[in-house]
Amino acid sequence: MQMNKNTAVGVVGATGYTGQEVLTLLEGHPGARLEFATSRSQAGEPTGIEGLVYSDPDMDRARDCDVVFLCLPHGKAVPWVESLLGRGGEAPRIIDLTADHRPGSGRESAAVYGLNEWYRDSVADAPLVANPGCYPTGMLLSLMPLFREGLVDPARLTVVNAASGVTGAGRAPRPDLLFAEVAGNFRAYGGGNRHRHLREVRSELGEVEILFQPHLLPVSRGILETIVLPVPEGIDADRIRGLWATRYRDEPAITVRESGLPELRDAVGTDRISLGVEDAADTRGPVCVLGVAFDNLGKGAAGQAVQNFNAIMKWPTELGIRC
Amino acid sequence: MQMNKNTAVGVVGATGYTGQEVLTLLEGHPGARLEFATSRSQAGEPTGIEGLVYSDPDMDRARDCDVVFLCLPHGKAVPWVESLLGRGGEAPRIIDLTADHRPGSGRESAAVYGLNEWYRDSVADAPLVANPGCYPTGMLLSLMPLFREGLVDPARLTVVNAASGVTGAGRAPRPDLLFAEVAGNFRAYGGGNRHRHLREVRSELGEVEILFQPHLLPVSRGILETIVLPVPEGIDADRIRGLWATRYRDEPAITVRESGLPELRDAVGTDRISLGVEDAADTRGPVCVLGVAFDNLGKGAAGQAVQNFNAIMKWPTELGIRC
Amino acid sequence: MQMNKNTAVGVVGATGYTGQEVLTLLEGHPGARLEFATSRSQAGEPTGIEGLVYSDPDMDRARDCDVVFLCLPHGKAVPWVESLLGRGGEAPRIIDLTADHRPGSGRESAAVYGLNEWYRDSVADAPLVANPGCYPTGMLLSLMPLFREGLVDPARLTVVNAASGVTGAGRAPRPDLLFAEVAGNFRAYGGGNRHRHLREVRSELGEVEILFQPHLLPVSRGILETIVLPVPEGIDADRIRGLWATRYRDEPAITVRESGLPELRDAVGTDRISLGVEDAADTRGPVCVLGVAFDNLGKGAAGQAVQNFNAIMKWPTELGIRC
Amino acid sequence: MQMNKNTAVGVVGATGYTGQEVLTLLEGHPGARLEFATSRSQAGEPTGIEGLVYSDPDMDRARDCDVVFLCLPHGKAVPWVESLLGRGGEAPRIIDLTADHRPGSGRESAAVYGLNEWYRDSVADAPLVANPGCYPTGMLLSLMPLFREGLVDPARLTVVNAASGVTGAGRAPRPDLLFAEVAGNFRAYGGGNRHRHLREVRSELGEVEILFQPHLLPVSRGILETIVLPVPEGIDADRIRGLWATRYRDEPAITVRESGLPELRDAVGTDRISLGVEDAADTRGPVCVLGVAFDNLGKGAAGQAVQNFNAIMKWPTELGIRC
Repeated sequence: MQMNKNTAVGVVGATGYTGQEVLTLLEGHPGARLEFATSRSQAGEPTGIEGLVYSDPDMDRARDCDVVFLCLPHGKAVPWVESLLGRGGEAPRIIDLTADHRPGSGRESAAVYGLNEWYRDSVADAPLVANPGCYPTGMLLSLMPLFREGLVDPARLTVVNAASGVTGAGRAPRPDLLFAEVAGNFRAYGGGNRHRHLREVRSELGEVEILFQPHLLPVSRGILETIVLPVPEGIDADRIRGLWATRYRDEPAITVRESGLPELRDAVGTDRISLGVEDAADTRGPVCVLGVAFDNLGKGAAGQAVQNFNAIMKWPTELGIRC
Repeated sequence: MQMNKNTAVGVVGATGYTGQEVLTLLEGHPGARLEFATSRSQAGEPTGIEGLVYSDPDMDRARDCDVVFLCLPHGKAVPWVESLLGRGGEAPRIIDLTADHRPGSGRESAAVYGLNEWYRDSVADAPLVANPGCYPTGMLLSLMPLFREGLVDPARLTVVNAASGVTGAGRAPRPDLLFAEVAGNFRAYGGGNRHRHLREVRSELGEVEILFQPHLLPVSRGILETIVLPVPEGIDADRIRGLWATRYRDEPAITVRESGLPELRDAVGTDRISLGVEDAADTRGPVCVLGVAFDNLGKGAAGQAVQNFNAIMKWPTELGIRC
Repeated sequence: MQMNKNTAVGVVGATGYTGQEVLTLLEGHPGARLEFATSRSQAGEPTGIEGLVYSDPDMDRARDCDVVFLCLPHGKAVPWVESLLGRGGEAPRIIDLTADHRPGSGRESAAVYGLNEWYRDSVADAPLVANPGCYPTGMLLSLMPLFREGLVDPARLTVVNAASGVTGAGRAPRPDLLFAEVAGNFRAYGGGNRHRHLREVRSELGEVEILFQPHLLPVSRGILETIVLPVPEGIDADRIRGLWATRYRDEPAITVRESGLPELRDAVGTDRISLGVEDAADTRGPVCVLGVAFDNLGKGAAGQAVQNFNAIMKWPTELGIRC
Repeated sequence: MQMNKNTAVGVVGATGYTGQEVLTLLEGHPGARLEFATSRSQAGEPTGIEGLVYSDPDMDRARDCDVVFLCLPHGKAVPWVESLLGRGGEAPRIIDLTADHRPGSGRESAAVYGLNEWYRDSVADAPLVANPGCYPTGMLLSLMPLFREGLVDPARLTVVNAASGVTGAGRAPRPDLLFAEVAGNFRAYGGGNRHRHLREVRSELGEVEILFQPHLLPVSRGILETIVLPVPEGIDADRIRGLWATRYRDEPAITVRESGLPELRDAVGTDRISLGVEDAADTRGPVCVLGVAFDNLGKGAAGQAVQNFNAIMKWPTELGIRC
């Protein structure tokens, strides 16, 4: 294991919220040596990291890296990927944090889906990793074991209620994201089960009967998902908790609560995800309520990206993350 | 219509968040003359209303009022009601904002349930009005017309996701309600469909298949309810919207949106409730998503109480409320 | 006194925070009839006021009004004023809420300065009223009586520490005003006593020895000014309080506290300003600490503008404001 | 240098905000082995640190430690100190985070004042270290070099405007610290230069002409101090910046900005303090404005305590802190 900050990494799109978080984690990562951090608007300005200023995008510098993190707006990763991987020869490994190559994007065949705790081994050999979306990370890590084991009632609707802090909407100035518009407010969005993250979830879970309703929270960071899950007769919270505990026993970035549902702040500022489950009273068929808490910029973006970086480098998954 | 602030009213428990809001509305009400506002802890201190200081609870002064508002902690209204109504003779009319006489409390037979837009006529003649709980107000005003008209699929689970500002939890100091515990946080509570407000809703809707999941928001005021409602074939958002529009056409405190779901701040600081509905895509059976926004202290408490006061006095329902 | 919403008023620039607040007050004002509310970006959309949609700016419609409120970005009021007043003949009265004609602007001779409680009589006859800036409103209402009566030590520095909610910075999207940038943050600005509001204050107080240090608060609305005021020997908080009480005895929009300093929320959402004063211990010469709280959009903008509107119409100053 | 988590440490009063922060830092400290964390109310419950539950206070366990951190309410440290140090023989070193032994407390002679960057050498040999108060830390680190070098005009008043997040007021439930009371609010306190932190500052700076005005911010963490400093002729911001830069050149926990004033969030969540200075325009005598930002729980409490722990152990000052 080489641990001397010798692996050359670069961050493309380093001034967005995701890019900033990736930069923070890589600066503290014992194996990474930051070669560049691109920003068109702030080129030449200090990054806050000693010896590193933002630089203009430069494909040649990217080519010289071992691993490149793409933290661009959705849609902007495609030309970088084509240019870096299309040449043949020695190419850097790419971790794409945009939606461009995720399941359901139409370009997913070019990438390995970086849901780390499930596809870590494939990530290890992939030229291109599609880092999961924030909401899907929570839905999939909680629901995949249950769907795979048949702990979900397929005839009844699973309702995923989710709420995210505003950094999930990015850093480009929008009138509806101004402080005075968000403070003291709370609102649903997504247009009636039409959020694009659904296709990513469905690609993994199958054509499940799911309703996903996101909301915007007046907080900077964090996602809480409260999932109303109809289960088959005989299944209960203990069974689900047990399944999670078994499946994720050796996963340092996943916490399974012994009781109750997690709060947002259990996870904000970390790269962990916290799972909890309760039985619901007074329903005709059995229903469980699942709670999932994580930081949209941590486990929901940069933290998982660093886990994928560690997978590529054959390092322990917790290296350089906050868990 | 007498409109000269000649109706003598008193507020019992005036320093809690609900009591404060009732006081504020009554001060501005053209028909109410505030006789007293009780507070054990702040007796003798100014209320902020000219000429009115908080006073110790005094049953005799209450007896001399036309209408008494009980804004006490849950459980504390019973002795007041017994004492005020138990004597025979002339008694003040009582509007009880606690849970003590609401449907499902075991004492509901003593009171008329003050869901104003539905039971206004009975309220007009009732000695005792049980003012609805905050969450039930939103659930019932949105769902009652649909249940009554058969616009709900009885075999499928209705999921009510709700989030409330912290004033809903009252003003008694609790460690978990300190600023530093709530700011930046978000959490589910209610223990798996076990919130006591459910019995109030079930008493009205019947033994419905409903899952109610409340959350605590990092805001001071306001409730948003996002309801996932499976509907029978052929029913859609337009139909629901039309039903609401017809039922609530002449109701100044209820707004039916022409499209989309309401935001919290559409209603915070007012005594209105705002209703919206959307069709959900990609579900096996048809599903609608309902959005309900109101102020837990406004329409969810003091505003509705003042509407009930107006009903008692045979005044227009919007008198003295913010709509 | 005509009180039938017969006075024709228009609002130019109605979608900014100030314009919205002016609209809200005028809608509820018993003497005002809203003729138009301009917005280039939202022309044709509903204003939220029944029967009124935003319209494109139109000088002719403005000319037909009795009173026009200019709620534009700073610098944009000049052409409106020139066009409306430059023609001769019948012109509407103008209340300019921008900085364009305030003292120190270079164009102050064309306007009467609308510091209502001091210049109300001149406002009554003025074709053009320059509505004061938000910070100066607080500084001047608290300090003017003291400077005029010699209750300030001219040889020692008066320090005005101020903090404002973010609506003071306007509604145009700026990256530094995004929720995630402001929440949990607090910062000084103004560049070392170089804030442009100073010239407005100095024009009124004279070339005073003053240091003004504004800060940006993580709240939507409100200004708190804490003023460290060296006073001559023999002067103390009681004397200042007494002077304020006398000077402002009949002013409904000014509250003088009997003790202690006001909090932000004493004034947020109102058109009042609240003044308080304390003696400072352990200083070589006597020092008082003044506290001033008001809503930057209320008394600091729209509320004072409506008071000036009332002055023009010879109506009571409190008509249609929240005090 | 022993670096194997072999130094036995204990935390007395571990569930307050300060105690929690000390616990967090010690858990991650490469030299500390946490022996116990006391809490009367939560004895037996998990601390969140693997293998450590809260325990009842136990003087004997404290005696067996190398270093004990006292994170108690003010006034409660005295009996611990007397018991631990009063016996003679081998005693643990004590870092007292309460005000009980700070300069001006009347008990300061028993302790070395732990203003780390100034008294580190004395701390190294002290049986008892009085960790500085949060506000004084910012005032002293910024002002001490200037007072000592005569860069302050002694005849003119220095005004320290400060604002703190609510964790500075502790975790005991108080009605005025509830979320709904603090959110959207801002208020001055301290009663006219009577805050007890002043005696701590005066003990260090001498009987200086200073006015200290604290405020309560609607944020969880962080202190911003904006200091209006009259300086002698010829002194300016460059000179102050240069003096700081020289004095603090090798101090990893102190950042001197090259220009402008720091924001709260430059320091929140870290154990750094950030200093900035600007020249003020348009004052009769020269005035500088100093800006100081730090986390009240970080550099203002736990971070500085760990620096003092490092001084005792002769370890580098940055060991285990976030800078």
